[in-house]
Amino acid sequence: MNREGPVEAELAWLERFTPATARAAAALPGLTGERILVVCHLDVKMVPMFAALTGAGAEVWACAANPATTRDQVAAHLTGLGVRVAARAGDPPGRHAANLAAAIQAGPTLLSEMGADASVATGGRLPGVRAGLEATGTGIDRLAGLDLAYPVFNWDDLPIKQGLHNRHLVGLMALITFVNVTGVSVFGRRVLVVGYGPVGRGVADAARSFGAVVEVCDPAPGARLAAGHLGFGTPSLAEGLARAEVVLTATGVDHAVPAAALAAAPDGVFLANVGHGSLELPVAELRAGVTGNPRPGVEVCELGGRTRYLLAGGAMLNLAAGPGDPFDTFDLVTALMLEATGFLATEGGSWPSGVHLLPAAVADRAARLVLG
Amino acid sequence: MNREGPVEAELAWLERFTPATARAAAALPGLTGERILVVCHLDVKMVPMFAALTGAGAEVWACAANPATTRDQVAAHLTGLGVRVAARAGDPPGRHAANLAAAIQAGPTLLSEMGADASVATGGRLPGVRAGLEATGTGIDRLAGLDLAYPVFNWDDLPIKQGLHNRHLVGLMALITFVNVTGVSVFGRRVLVVGYGPVGRGVADAARSFGAVVEVCDPAPGARLAAGHLGFGTPSLAEGLARAEVVLTATGVDHAVPAAALAAAPDGVFLANVGHGSLELPVAELRAGVTGNPRPGVEVCELGGRTRYLLAGGAMLNLAAGPGDPFDTFDLVTALMLEATGFLATEGGSWPSGVHLLPAAVADRAARLVLG
Amino acid sequence: MNREGPVEAELAWLERFTPATARAAAALPGLTGERILVVCHLDVKMVPMFAALTGAGAEVWACAANPATTRDQVAAHLTGLGVRVAARAGDPPGRHAANLAAAIQAGPTLLSEMGADASVATGGRLPGVRAGLEATGTGIDRLAGLDLAYPVFNWDDLPIKQGLHNRHLVGLMALITFVNVTGVSVFGRRVLVVGYGPVGRGVADAARSFGAVVEVCDPAPGARLAAGHLGFGTPSLAEGLARAEVVLTATGVDHAVPAAALAAAPDGVFLANVGHGSLELPVAELRAGVTGNPRPGVEVCELGGRTRYLLAGGAMLNLAAGPGDPFDTFDLVTALMLEATGFLATEGGSWPSGVHLLPAAVADRAARLVLG
Amino acid sequence: MNREGPVEAELAWLERFTPATARAAAALPGLTGERILVVCHLDVKMVPMFAALTGAGAEVWACAANPATTRDQVAAHLTGLGVRVAARAGDPPGRHAANLAAAIQAGPTLLSEMGADASVATGGRLPGVRAGLEATGTGIDRLAGLDLAYPVFNWDDLPIKQGLHNRHLVGLMALITFVNVTGVSVFGRRVLVVGYGPVGRGVADAARSFGAVVEVCDPAPGARLAAGHLGFGTPSLAEGLARAEVVLTATGVDHAVPAAALAAAPDGVFLANVGHGSLELPVAELRAGVTGNPRPGVEVCELGGRTRYLLAGGAMLNLAAGPGDPFDTFDLVTALMLEATGFLATEGGSWPSGVHLLPAAVADRAARLVLG
Repeated sequence: MNREGPVEAELAWLERFTPATARAAAALPGLTGERILVVCHLDVKMVPMFAALTGAGAEVWACAANPATTRDQVAAHLTGLGVRVAARAGDPPGRHAANLAAAIQAGPTLLSEMGADASVATGGRLPGVRAGLEATGTGIDRLAGLDLAYPVFNWDDLPIKQGLHNRHLVGLMALITFVNVTGVSVFGRRVLVVGYGPVGRGVADAARSFGAVVEVCDPAPGARLAAGHLGFGTPSLAEGLARAEVVLTATGVDHAVPAAALAAAPDGVFLANVGHGSLELPVAELRAGVTGNPRPGVEVCELGGRTRYLLAGGAMLNLAAGPGDPFDTFDLVTALMLEATGFLATEGGSWPSGVHLLPAAVADRAARLVLG
Repeated sequence: MNREGPVEAELAWLERFTPATARAAAALPGLTGERILVVCHLDVKMVPMFAALTGAGAEVWACAANPATTRDQVAAHLTGLGVRVAARAGDPPGRHAANLAAAIQAGPTLLSEMGADASVATGGRLPGVRAGLEATGTGIDRLAGLDLAYPVFNWDDLPIKQGLHNRHLVGLMALITFVNVTGVSVFGRRVLVVGYGPVGRGVADAARSFGAVVEVCDPAPGARLAAGHLGFGTPSLAEGLARAEVVLTATGVDHAVPAAALAAAPDGVFLANVGHGSLELPVAELRAGVTGNPRPGVEVCELGGRTRYLLAGGAMLNLAAGPGDPFDTFDLVTALMLEATGFLATEGGSWPSGVHLLPAAVADRAARLVLG
Repeated sequence: MNREGPVEAELAWLERFTPATARAAAALPGLTGERILVVCHLDVKMVPMFAALTGAGAEVWACAANPATTRDQVAAHLTGLGVRVAARAGDPPGRHAANLAAAIQAGPTLLSEMGADASVATGGRLPGVRAGLEATGTGIDRLAGLDLAYPVFNWDDLPIKQGLHNRHLVGLMALITFVNVTGVSVFGRRVLVVGYGPVGRGVADAARSFGAVVEVCDPAPGARLAAGHLGFGTPSLAEGLARAEVVLTATGVDHAVPAAALAAAPDGVFLANVGHGSLELPVAELRAGVTGNPRPGVEVCELGGRTRYLLAGGAMLNLAAGPGDPFDTFDLVTALMLEATGFLATEGGSWPSGVHLLPAAVADRAARLVLG
Repeated sequence: MNREGPVEAELAWLERFTPATARAAAALPGLTGERILVVCHLDVKMVPMFAALTGAGAEVWACAANPATTRDQVAAHLTGLGVRVAARAGDPPGRHAANLAAAIQAGPTLLSEMGADASVATGGRLPGVRAGLEATGTGIDRLAGLDLAYPVFNWDDLPIKQGLHNRHLVGLMALITFVNVTGVSVFGRRVLVVGYGPVGRGVADAARSFGAVVEVCDPAPGARLAAGHLGFGTPSLAEGLARAEVVLTATGVDHAVPAAALAAAPDGVFLANVGHGSLELPVAELRAGVTGNPRPGVEVCELGGRTRYLLAGGAMLNLAAGPGDPFDTFDLVTALMLEATGFLATEGGSWPSGVHLLPAAVADRAARLVLG
């Protein structure tokens, strides 16, 4: 998805569709004297946020949330902006950990994390830190076990993140990626969505709008009632798998679809995951039977005399085999991160230690910037 | 549905929502000297059209398309407008036929029919008639067998009739009527739509938007493919009936659902028809087992140890148990009838004998009047 | 809507569609010795719950949540079940308060309220009460100001109430009622939904599925972003009103649409409210200009030279001019009330004083009963 | 879109999703002695049809419907199957014409065309031809001017082609391609669909399901009424362009959006075409102002001080910048071509000369093969 293009050209295009981020950058308070440690995906979409932070006077250290998503060209570009970034694509665990340790060593005053690696590595006691941000549910879960010495503001659970990104973008981009990767449509196909949280709801809606006959599985009875109110069938997992032509998991739970349950699925079923982990599907068992790789992102698995098509190796389909979020919709994310960082620098440090939901007023400022 | 109210009050309300009809009335050519025989449902929604015709100078005879739909207050109101109308609600066949014969005797110059009764009664040889209109598929079928002495313009098959009324209004009004009559929703219920022509498509869409899990039966493979492309399951009739909680017929074919096929339907299934006939469902067999009438329009039928709820006696649900079309959407119908009558008077008489589709230009004029 | 029918016939029909309530009744713990004070709408849909409570051995007092919704036939029927009920339709404030005082005097052990009248009347110190239930947002707000001597379990904020009733039922029933009351459709009409909480979302979705061109106003930028992600235009209130043909309020805020703002709306605009209060629209100003009442539930208001059609006097459209919830969907409500009452009797009393969200496990039990 | 892969690997994948084509191939009558001239896009999706024809004993000549869509690897593969194919990617007009002339010279007995080139080149008098097929509206228009010596069966106007391909596939694939090519979503963007025939309807539906605020322009009042019944705004072209953020043309008419009209569109508008021609947009004027090509398929055009993004050079977006139809949906197309060719060989030659709609029974057979 254009990943080979020079970062500068991509950035020029991106900037046409991120006006809120530009406005948030212009509204940042002076950050001279701040040392900010950012742990995130080192993708081109994050560049404008880094540029804004250094532009406001901060010293910035960037670490990879996941070495698999690091782009070296982006790292190089960030270096050019004055960001300290040692990460390289595919860093092995040792080097990845060393990069984080070095950034921690620099003595950050503020944190902006996706996954809480720096907080976890220091037991939440990073000495000079006044306040932090956390963007993921996984990170929030990990923070819950720590005796934090500073406040951390959770923005994963903001309505504008759950309600827009998780609810709409993931589903649509997953279905688009399905068509791109397989060359096959879902018109008239029976699609089973496993997991009916916000992501699953978006997936079910998108699959229906792409012409599929959609059914939904979820162990929570309230979720099944909600799915039924939109006219989705709500079979048990066993019933649903027995007739599914496409299975899309969005549970957030490893092994949500056990290998044994999958045995009943029809020959030729497509299997993909849009939840945050990579193990919702029985990836190990499937990969034991791989017989071919007919298209990038598609593995043919022969198991028990039946064919299964595993997409993106069971990793998050829209990210691992597609472009992730569109450029324009990421404008809200980076604008929000900038508004939140400004809040950290000016007010957040005076909040009590522990995890707080990012104040609605901060989120509203970012939303207003997007609305223009 | 307010049928008891004085016609004048209803008319005053109706006229607020039929501006196109008013514009079409104003644009009518002079009709002095014309004798127009109109065969239609003698309902309040038709009154503005009659008023326009008499206002333009025509002599008008009104006959009932069906004595069951005649409202005496409407007939009286029409008489007040100068229309010759002998029809009364529930006229027995003899009187109904006599009314038509008298109107034919008056020597009409133009016809505007719903069902072609006057043309059929005279073998299509009505002497003074220059041209006619026909509004129904049934009428068009009946005209096909006649050696017509004049041109008749078919407006049933106009895209704006098939694509708006049949495709949208019937389905929505049928689902609204279902909720009104039963007091029960279709959220999460399995609804089987039998017949996937324009009416069935509208019914399927409306049922989905009301929260049902919708499946579609149609013997035509192309119709099943089309339904599948919108994500509707397309079982056989037997498979569909075996799991349906609501069955809605829209086939246009008597006995589309035979009693034997219905035996497999679950206990407590609702049965209703939205096709033009009243015999798509096995009404006789069902009525043989009626055990109660718990609400107006609902019959409880016990057959073979299972309960079926028959709605509106198997007649067209939205008309027989509901208000039919909303007032505003009928504006297009009466505006079109007026434009078409003006066309008959000025140009239509010079067309060759036989059935023609009403020219698109005439329909477009009516549509433009509605668009305002 | 069949309100005249004998309650017994209605109940017989209702019971066909409330199997979960029957199962919840059968699963109730013995309630002998409990005195339960229920404050609710005295409508037929509540009868099965009362029957279950008395059937389980409880002594039950019923008070009206609102004298305007009390049905005398229902009150009589409840009396026949052994429920103590003094309420009559339209009780004046004094008698209404006296009824409540008498029930309080009886010394209830458990409360089940809609609006918290009994708790408020006693300052939350009702001596013998072990635990209570509250069903409305208004009630929860009122309880917040009290120093409660017992735990009250909030079930208004359960996902199955917000996500099903508020999100789906209200919107659909409001649109159905619009068509029933006006006789007019919304096909192609510009509908402005004011307020985009769960109710507003359901209204916007329903209006779109009924064929309207829908726009949404909400002061919260996140709500506007969410509406935009579904393709609804998101004008300011002034912009939206200037072109709206139908205005539907769902804000929960009195005077959400001020009279001055409404002045710019086009001639012939329909105005209705689906929020819980009756003053979201400028009812007083509108009623100062009433010139006619062409259909039940419709007032023609002439203001500043323009016509406005006020529906249901600005009260909640689906309740004040329609049947409220369908019978089948109310099954979840009464099943949940019974599960929750069983919980109060067995476990709830041991919780600390104050307001708690009803435990998810209780809600899940009710949801599972509905799923069958 | 994987066009670089070896044809054999693509074919192996394709064959997994084209079971109806395989069944139609197996059901072909013997074609020994037939010489079939096929004019089509020489794309991998057509290979199974050619393989079936040669497998049934026919001699087959393949000519390119458009040299721009010819893939040399496909041509080579066809040669390996025994098909006579001289076409190469990008053949200049002279060579393209010579290829066709040579195939005509071979004396075909049956024709299967997309665009009617062979019939037009011979004035419809190709001597040995018994019958032909035509797949495009353009071809049907061209045939109308000829005095055909043989029957030609039109399958473009079959309900399963108009109702599935044109109505659903084009719209969805166009929107997917929009996101792929631009990296930008349409969430909350105002999309103007120009032209509301079957293709435009599919585009409008798809754009709405992708989160856009959709409006529709069409000069036909009936089309505007139909769009309004689905809740799409129906401004004039001038009004619509003045606020459009994305313009998608689907009119089938060159210059449907004149340069002058486009001048009022906002800065940064995206322009793309999904109609069959490449000149619905003012391509020449736009290209006179091109200042950059930031991504493949995107041209930045600066005109009158405003920026316009022209996609795919104004050619059909889903084909010129995307993969066209998904593999599975093309199964119906090639199955239908085979059923139709079998019909030509056995019955079609006995029909009278001139253009006929392909009999519904033939289309139904293909549809049944797809339904499985």
